[in-house]
Amino acid sequence: MTVPQSNGVSKSLPSALPLVQKLSKDHDNVLKTFRLLIADLCQQFGGGHPGGAIGMAAIGVSLWKYIMRYAPHTPNFFNRDRFVLSNGHTCLFQYSFLHLTGYEAMTFDQLKSYHSDRADALCPGHPEIEHEGIEVTTGPLGQGIANAVGLAMATKNLATTYNRPGYDVVSNHTWCMIGDACLQEGVALEAISLAGHFRLNNLTVIYDNNQVTCDGSVDLTNTEDVNAKMRASGWDVIDVEDGCYDIEGIVGALEQARNAQEKPTFINVKTIIGLDSHVAGTATAHGAAFGPQSVANLKTLYGFNPEEHFVIGDAVRKFFQDLPARGEQWVQEWNQLVSDYTVKHPELGAEFQARVRGELPANWEQHIPSSFPEKPTASRASSGLVFNPIAKEINTFMVGTADLSPSVNMIWPGKVDFQHPDLRTTCGINGDYSGRYIHYGIREHAMCAISNGLAAYSPNTIIPVTSTFFMFYLYAAPAVRMGALQNLQGIHVATHDSIGMGEDGPTHQPIELAALYRAMPNILYIRPGDSEEVAGAWMAAINAKKAPTIISTSRQALPQLKQTRRDGVARGAYVLEEDEFATVTLLGVGAELSFALDVAAQLRAQKGITARVISFPCQRLFEQQSLEYRRETLRRHRGIPAIVIEPYAPNGWERYADAGINVNRFGHSLPSKAAYKFFGYEIDALTTKVVRYLDQLNGDEYLRHEFVDL
Amino acid sequence: MTVPQSNGVSKSLPSALPLVQKLSKDHDNVLKTFRLLIADLCQQFGGGHPGGAIGMAAIGVSLWKYIMRYAPHTPNFFNRDRFVLSNGHTCLFQYSFLHLTGYEAMTFDQLKSYHSDRADALCPGHPEIEHEGIEVTTGPLGQGIANAVGLAMATKNLATTYNRPGYDVVSNHTWCMIGDACLQEGVALEAISLAGHFRLNNLTVIYDNNQVTCDGSVDLTNTEDVNAKMRASGWDVIDVEDGCYDIEGIVGALEQARNAQEKPTFINVKTIIGLDSHVAGTATAHGAAFGPQSVANLKTLYGFNPEEHFVIGDAVRKFFQDLPARGEQWVQEWNQLVSDYTVKHPELGAEFQARVRGELPANWEQHIPSSFPEKPTASRASSGLVFNPIAKEINTFMVGTADLSPSVNMIWPGKVDFQHPDLRTTCGINGDYSGRYIHYGIREHAMCAISNGLAAYSPNTIIPVTSTFFMFYLYAAPAVRMGALQNLQGIHVATHDSIGMGEDGPTHQPIELAALYRAMPNILYIRPGDSEEVAGAWMAAINAKKAPTIISTSRQALPQLKQTRRDGVARGAYVLEEDEFATVTLLGVGAELSFALDVAAQLRAQKGITARVISFPCQRLFEQQSLEYRRETLRRHRGIPAIVIEPYAPNGWERYADAGINVNRFGHSLPSKAAYKFFGYEIDALTTKVVRYLDQLNGDEYLRHEFVDL
Repeated sequence: MTVPQSNGVSKSLPSALPLVQKLSKDHDNVLKTFRLLIADLCQQFGGGHPGGAIGMAAIGVSLWKYIMRYAPHTPNFFNRDRFVLSNGHTCLFQYSFLHLTGYEAMTFDQLKSYHSDRADALCPGHPEIEHEGIEVTTGPLGQGIANAVGLAMATKNLATTYNRPGYDVVSNHTWCMIGDACLQEGVALEAISLAGHFRLNNLTVIYDNNQVTCDGSVDLTNTEDVNAKMRASGWDVIDVEDGCYDIEGIVGALEQARNAQEKPTFINVKTIIGLDSHVAGTATAHGAAFGPQSVANLKTLYGFNPEEHFVIGDAVRKFFQDLPARGEQWVQEWNQLVSDYTVKHPELGAEFQARVRGELPANWEQHIPSSFPEKPTASRASSGLVFNPIAKEINTFMVGTADLSPSVNMIWPGKVDFQHPDLRTTCGINGDYSGRYIHYGIREHAMCAISNGLAAYSPNTIIPVTSTFFMFYLYAAPAVRMGALQNLQGIHVATHDSIGMGEDGPTHQPIELAALYRAMPNILYIRPGDSEEVAGAWMAAINAKKAPTIISTSRQALPQLKQTRRDGVARGAYVLEEDEFATVTLLGVGAELSFALDVAAQLRAQKGITARVISFPCQRLFEQQSLEYRRETLRRHRGIPAIVIEPYAPNGWERYADAGINVNRFGHSLPSKAAYKFFGYEIDALTTKVVRYLDQLNGDEYLRHEFVDL
Repeated sequence: MTVPQSNGVSKSLPSALPLVQKLSKDHDNVLKTFRLLIADLCQQFGGGHPGGAIGMAAIGVSLWKYIMRYAPHTPNFFNRDRFVLSNGHTCLFQYSFLHLTGYEAMTFDQLKSYHSDRADALCPGHPEIEHEGIEVTTGPLGQGIANAVGLAMATKNLATTYNRPGYDVVSNHTWCMIGDACLQEGVALEAISLAGHFRLNNLTVIYDNNQVTCDGSVDLTNTEDVNAKMRASGWDVIDVEDGCYDIEGIVGALEQARNAQEKPTFINVKTIIGLDSHVAGTATAHGAAFGPQSVANLKTLYGFNPEEHFVIGDAVRKFFQDLPARGEQWVQEWNQLVSDYTVKHPELGAEFQARVRGELPANWEQHIPSSFPEKPTASRASSGLVFNPIAKEINTFMVGTADLSPSVNMIWPGKVDFQHPDLRTTCGINGDYSGRYIHYGIREHAMCAISNGLAAYSPNTIIPVTSTFFMFYLYAAPAVRMGALQNLQGIHVATHDSIGMGEDGPTHQPIELAALYRAMPNILYIRPGDSEEVAGAWMAAINAKKAPTIISTSRQALPQLKQTRRDGVARGAYVLEEDEFATVTLLGVGAELSFALDVAAQLRAQKGITARVISFPCQRLFEQQSLEYRRETLRRHRGIPAIVIEPYAPNGWERYADAGINVNRFGHSLPSKAAYKFFGYEIDALTTKVVRYLDQLNGDEYLRHEFVDL
């Protein structure tokens, strides 16, 4: 069957239904074996989540045996179908199929180490991207389905960019399992809406509809018409009534979904949680082992020996044994295809292969201006000056915003939107799937979760860039965290940081949010102070191949400082103004960096006090420097007190400073300058605080032992 | 018309339509005056959000003149209708109607100070709860509609609890304006789904359907069938085609919504953003002033003098002038009703009036056990021991969970669910609207945003309690923040804190989240160490009348410590073990508090080192103590180094400690004890680190000036 896709891809995939019918006699044994395996694994640990995995057994057989294109012995085969387990607590479902289908790392020993004390186990409590056969780390509900949307968008973009007639070098499908929970989480609902808008016909969501969550029946909290809601959101819906046994029905639905023409597909599969156990159909089956007697009873019911555990019979092994070879054949076919394609389209082929390897063009840094206008410039505008020339030239970057295009300055000349091409006609939108500018809508959380999917498609093949006000990265924080946890490169352009953003007021003025991102592992939170530092921030972000970065910029214009250096940003903090005989060190940060310089000047001019000035855009990068560099930069060991100036909560600065001029309350709705004045961020007031502190230090020896809020 | 409600309330409200028809000749002038006022206010500032407010003018006239029951001169009239502007950036819409309808604080001068530099302005960039006539602070999109769901739930609960035949002491309706954005935000979608499930017929959402957001046409990012989606979610839908002028049609729709029998109502009102201006119907009308010429043109078009600004003619003043008196009449009727009710139902009336005043029964603390079992107890279980007796007895508490009832221990004997009563029959659920246990579903963000609405109904009349794993309070963080910003009491029971939660792994193990909540203004983040401290945490939380609290508890059993004191928690940190000649101070926290005691014992026994031990459950409460208390507790000025032991990111502890045994990376999926071991949280390993640090301190003078990660 040839399936034309709206992105121009066509793919020929034979129907698996004849094979399903031929092997149907084996299914009963396979399903029983699988279910007992899950029950045994949970019982061994005395916990875990058996019910969902058992209920989804027939779905798993349908996917891994009959539908998905993947290669167990080449887990990272580029054009593999992506599978996302959004209901990640049912991880044993995936682990067991990885074992059965021949993923080499997932040995039987590893599988049986589920929830054991071994630190190198491949069976953590939720799937983790580090391990073979796992596409994304899931667990926090709703993330996985948003990731899947991103994975499907990655396919669309790469396929439309690189496929040529006869050479569909990118043609994979994305399959996503969800449970009742994912249909309640906001991030999933945002992503569902956007996937419908984008008409991602290469995305299939399979709903394990068992109508049970931790609290009991879903009726306790959700009585909506799910199918109608999905249809209203632009999805095709297929029902499967007997999801526990009807493999033929499931495979038929999955094939229909794979062949979808215009929309993503939602397959509503009715299952029974903890099928055939004494807790079948109840919440008790969700998150606890069944108990030894119940597991034994289940074995007896299934005609197995209740004394034996972890039994996988030869027939079951045989049922799955052809899958690695089948996968290697696909790998070889694809390798040949890419090889032929590169002969036919040498330039495109070379670019494609570099993308596959996750390489940027060697000259990417050359697109960054070597200098900037001297006039005061908002650092959000600087960010555009730095990045838009890169985005224009390099396909790797997919750039989006949560409906703040006029504010975040991420539009490059000639940008094309990522959109279904038909919207050109119906809505007059300049877009198709090769577009790399994504209108995410007012969906900050999905934006970042989807961007994790874009990044997870293959390491550094796509570098997603998101943008919104810094404050709204609190909405997106769970997804930003998941990116950091998964070592996924992604660049978050956060504008309107600090009280300087002005009259939008305390709901929009971030006070405490930097404390979160400075504490979060494996993410760079960078506040550059002017255009030159913005260049340094972008360079650090693009060079951080295994971590996300937040570039935190100002709404208001900032003076351009002659002392700043882009290479200083890479070290986290560096000296702007040095003096061997200084009596105080001022730490300046981001939008308020110039305040530190101005205070130093006023201290010198009016008080005869000499101050060193440090620019401190990124704590994490500074922590990565040598102890010597850090000590020499701060010089606290020389007894020189350090004072940080930043209108954020001080938390975390106590590590680098003896005192701080910070903000310990929520903001206030005032225009930018008035807001700074209201909170005491004027040069006179700041200078007075510094002088008073230095005076106090002489009189109160205790102060030396304490961080002082000035 | 008498409207029986499913909660048993009946209300008699005459139709306003005859009055609408009588006054229809005035509408044109009122609408034009209003629109020009908005245009002038934005033009004066040179910014702001004129377009939406102008497009919604007829909706506003319909609401404030014809539909809503409120009292401008008694803004906090208890039984007033609640109005929520979820699209808070259109705040001028609300401010202008507050002025026109006679709210005394909103003088013409105040209105004209919109976005000025005056710090006492009542017209901040988004509505703020502190000001007359504002029910909740909005701005971050999607929050307001979720708040509105909470406000409507508050009405249902209070009405069902206190109303008696002939005495509907609580009968108000909740009206919520939203724009296109709120229909995209996840938190709104969660709340919409739950409101449909709860069949909140006392909630009406009015959709300002102008099909424009910042990026341009909504088609760029959303092409779903909104009405179908709302119907699928359990809402009635009414369309109004001409939302710019058709006041009669809008009033009719609003009346139909107010009389809804079984469902919340979604009124889809088509409007034109920036109507009649040169940017009408475009994104440019959204967030910028029109420009002086355009404003002048608009005045000419409307037959006004283009040279005059801020003109509100006598006819318009007269149109609104009867509203304060009408409101006072409603206030008097309600006061009389409550008075009669209290005569007829003395006990209930007294309780109701105490609720109105926001008072708890004087004896609430007596429900807390005076002692606890000595056996190891998970602090999540301790939390249930402390709080469930209170929740059982005191109606003030409405308690919910995001689908973690089996894990969070918040169920008291005899609890009744908050549910539509018909679900008893259809789903076998033990609930009605008097129920105070809320199954929020897997909707953490909406849970906390809705709880803000419950709290905002009237100060401390309802104290909402939410619960889920600590990690998932990152999903809810934007709403938790809004509670803190609004000084709303709310208690968040966060279980499964720290790596001790075990095998669910790094997605569920909070490392950096405490740093956020310790930095966030006006919230208490408390980690109690055992049952006694859990008692102290709850007391602090219930006593915090103007702030939310997070009580952070363990999944795993904790030893019960003889040194802990509930009154110590109120001081944030206190001495557990004192020694005048100690060489080191150990700071213990929450689930790991016992580690500090055990390390101290081992230091003494094996190394001859004497340690002081401090329990440090809450940084914010500690900061509220006197300088003397803080210094005497920490004794760092005496040169005694302090070491904090907590498997979280260290950020913020640098203020209180010289060194820390913390975690600077994401967690690891291992059972609780193995996870602690993996990260070095065993007594031997911890003791070794302390000893090594004390040795190093002697050899390296620099270390005294630095926070050291051990």
